[in-house]
Amino acid sequence: MQERIKAILLREPSDEIIKAEGWVRTKRDSKNVCFLEINDGSSLKGLQVVVDKDSFNNNEVLDKITTGSSVICEGKIVASLGGNQKVEMQLSSLTLVGECPVDYPLQKKRHTIEFLREIAHLRPRTNLLGAVTRVRNTLAYAVHSFFQENGFIYVNTPLITCSDAEGAGETFQVTTLDLDKVPLTKEGSVDYSKDFFGKKASLTVSGQLEGETYAMAMKNIYTFGPTFRAENSNTTKHLAEFWMVEPEMAFCSLDGDMEIAESFLKYIFSKCLEKNPEDMEFFDNFVLKGNIETLRHVIETPFAHMTYTDAIKVLEKENDHFDFPVHWGSDIQTEHEKFLTEKVCKSPVIVTDYPKEIKAFYMKLNEDGKTVRGMDVLVPRIGEIIGGSERESDLNILLSRINELGLNPEDYWWYLDLRKYGSVPHSGFGLGFERAVQYVTGVQNIRDVIPYPRYVKSADF
Amino acid sequence: MQERIKAILLREPSDEIIKAEGWVRTKRDSKNVCFLEINDGSSLKGLQVVVDKDSFNNNEVLDKITTGSSVICEGKIVASLGGNQKVEMQLSSLTLVGECPVDYPLQKKRHTIEFLREIAHLRPRTNLLGAVTRVRNTLAYAVHSFFQENGFIYVNTPLITCSDAEGAGETFQVTTLDLDKVPLTKEGSVDYSKDFFGKKASLTVSGQLEGETYAMAMKNIYTFGPTFRAENSNTTKHLAEFWMVEPEMAFCSLDGDMEIAESFLKYIFSKCLEKNPEDMEFFDNFVLKGNIETLRHVIETPFAHMTYTDAIKVLEKENDHFDFPVHWGSDIQTEHEKFLTEKVCKSPVIVTDYPKEIKAFYMKLNEDGKTVRGMDVLVPRIGEIIGGSERESDLNILLSRINELGLNPEDYWWYLDLRKYGSVPHSGFGLGFERAVQYVTGVQNIRDVIPYPRYVKSADF
Repeated sequence: MQERIKAILLREPSDEIIKAEGWVRTKRDSKNVCFLEINDGSSLKGLQVVVDKDSFNNNEVLDKITTGSSVICEGKIVASLGGNQKVEMQLSSLTLVGECPVDYPLQKKRHTIEFLREIAHLRPRTNLLGAVTRVRNTLAYAVHSFFQENGFIYVNTPLITCSDAEGAGETFQVTTLDLDKVPLTKEGSVDYSKDFFGKKASLTVSGQLEGETYAMAMKNIYTFGPTFRAENSNTTKHLAEFWMVEPEMAFCSLDGDMEIAESFLKYIFSKCLEKNPEDMEFFDNFVLKGNIETLRHVIETPFAHMTYTDAIKVLEKENDHFDFPVHWGSDIQTEHEKFLTEKVCKSPVIVTDYPKEIKAFYMKLNEDGKTVRGMDVLVPRIGEIIGGSERESDLNILLSRINELGLNPEDYWWYLDLRKYGSVPHSGFGLGFERAVQYVTGVQNIRDVIPYPRYVKSADF
Repeated sequence: MQERIKAILLREPSDEIIKAEGWVRTKRDSKNVCFLEINDGSSLKGLQVVVDKDSFNNNEVLDKITTGSSVICEGKIVASLGGNQKVEMQLSSLTLVGECPVDYPLQKKRHTIEFLREIAHLRPRTNLLGAVTRVRNTLAYAVHSFFQENGFIYVNTPLITCSDAEGAGETFQVTTLDLDKVPLTKEGSVDYSKDFFGKKASLTVSGQLEGETYAMAMKNIYTFGPTFRAENSNTTKHLAEFWMVEPEMAFCSLDGDMEIAESFLKYIFSKCLEKNPEDMEFFDNFVLKGNIETLRHVIETPFAHMTYTDAIKVLEKENDHFDFPVHWGSDIQTEHEKFLTEKVCKSPVIVTDYPKEIKAFYMKLNEDGKTVRGMDVLVPRIGEIIGGSERESDLNILLSRINELGLNPEDYWWYLDLRKYGSVPHSGFGLGFERAVQYVTGVQNIRDVIPYPRYVKSADF
């Protein structure tokens, strides 16, 4: 395959004729010289191509080249006199592959991030979205390599489900029924026996429960796939369709869970600094000052640990300063999370043992009968980044939790089987992948860290 | 983390006390000795644990242990006298973590694969599904590492879409409308302005078109995510929800496309033979004889090339032997594909340049005006495994193809923009991931190579 611009930029000057393909980001023209900056997505920096118009014999083609054109350039790599790059290309031959008319929306001037969202099909051609795309890629592959290196098995849990077993939040319905004439039963309700799956079906809100079934056979597994929430929330943190990472470990208590979550975060953040230094510096300079320092801090500092009860004791003393004062039993919100990690611990902190009332039914009940073995990993600047727990492995306790919450045990027959047949202590956690991309890049709105964001009233492209 | 059984089986005998965790697959009991086979999903083979009942001081616990129990065993690793394993564990301490009552469905006897589908939450605990799970994992990670090693960027294209732009097949509708009382407009049709996205939305049938938008910025990209078809087909090859791999390369003609497809297949198949030799041998012995030989053949043989027109010439001579006789213009079906690769070429073969009528609108039109630069990769035993093409990069030709097929150009505004602003020759292909898992394992029914298969009338768990 053709050498990428990232590699060409690392070349030493030589007389060899090199070929570079890409899109023109800028063209600066003067009487005798023309400078083209060519980018092919392999790096933030493009290749500067210098055309000596007096000696170049194809100025007609050169004239047609504009911002956004696709070109193939051939020439020698020479030392650059400009300060921005070590080497540049002295053009000897130029092919205009695809022209780009002047109504091209990505002209040189700066564009608002809101405008870029309207041209989501073109925005990866900008510095910001290009860098996000590369770092998102690094982060995704780091997720896989962390788990693969540690003997975890990648499991694809289903997206379409007839059991809303996690019971969390609003779901999207999936159907092949014709909404113009919904078939009805004799009793007058929707006749789902006519639907594709023969039942009411929806998009999953989590692969955890199915993931647990595989952990009970393979010991350590992880999922990494799309997840859906039909929440009517118009925020910078929520999407209707997002990617989740959910590892699950058998023979593993909450202590093991916390250890793995900590090494996992440190590993994936390190990979971004290691593999995309140029992009990370770009974010630090133009998106969020101090971002790299925050990440280094997370990577280098041992995570602190604190029970929910202790956290509340600390927070209660500061209730005057919070928008939402806390007491034992209340949710810990972002302002409190940030306070704990930034002011109290001055390090990432894992808060454990939450009141059962504010956590999911499957979390292991502590002996006090009041708290559960849940954990949230809090990091500076955003608060919670990971939520997890040891799962209830005792069949009877789990059953009584399900009944307590008014859920129907029959919906959970297969999940309960895991506690019936060779149950083991097991634990897991979830990382919202886009939240992690936001954290690593410093990008403020979640809609800008996924190629085609889906949210209320928006599923374009 | 705790040492896995796969690693323990590679240990040399020693006096060190080792810990092994897992589930009991079999228990063979005699008067003086008891043999437990412990499996933790890390390998097909389990660890044989030998209990000398005379010296073991906890025979009460031992009595409670049954097939399916979860246990922690401690003991020395010694050379095994049995022929099936090099080493075994001489038990010194035993913890029964979770009992397993006798109604456990996975007793020692053989089960039909249909029965295992009904207990999909337990089936990864069998030899067959355990091996499938490990090989599927290897294949998935190989997909990522092939593309990452070659500088491709992983892109997550959207699952929920309002444009059925590929126009292929039947789709699932995604909605938050209440089907019991669908809101209507004044004119009496469904009022989609009240739906979550403000429009009719569905699940994607391909990420290709969105993938192309990213290839036009990053040059080489790939997608690997779920895809949906609401086809009412009850076969061993179709699922309503399956995973697809779709790379897309800019500045790449069909020749480059074919080269990449060939190296890609060879790479991912090799990884399975290299990383899962024990599982692959299991498939060869118990699922499909000669499977490894077929894969080696694909890995080692250069792929043949043939145009559709030449393929039809060859096939027409054999029309007597086919269920579906062919002529120029007809679809090439599985029987013909197998004939071409197995009998004619005696190697994998890539068939190119199909009549435009039987291929998608976006394929590049050849100069003959009749054929398009599509390709199908055919392999022995199953026929087509990959389909791809060079894409039409000329705006006017693409527009006239869209009009010819009665599609609405407005639905493709962003796709057409790629041809308007810096168009380049580009190509890509698609691999149905479950088909690849079927091919590598020899497993006959696609429902057994995905954890929780979704098909007509079936979305359990």
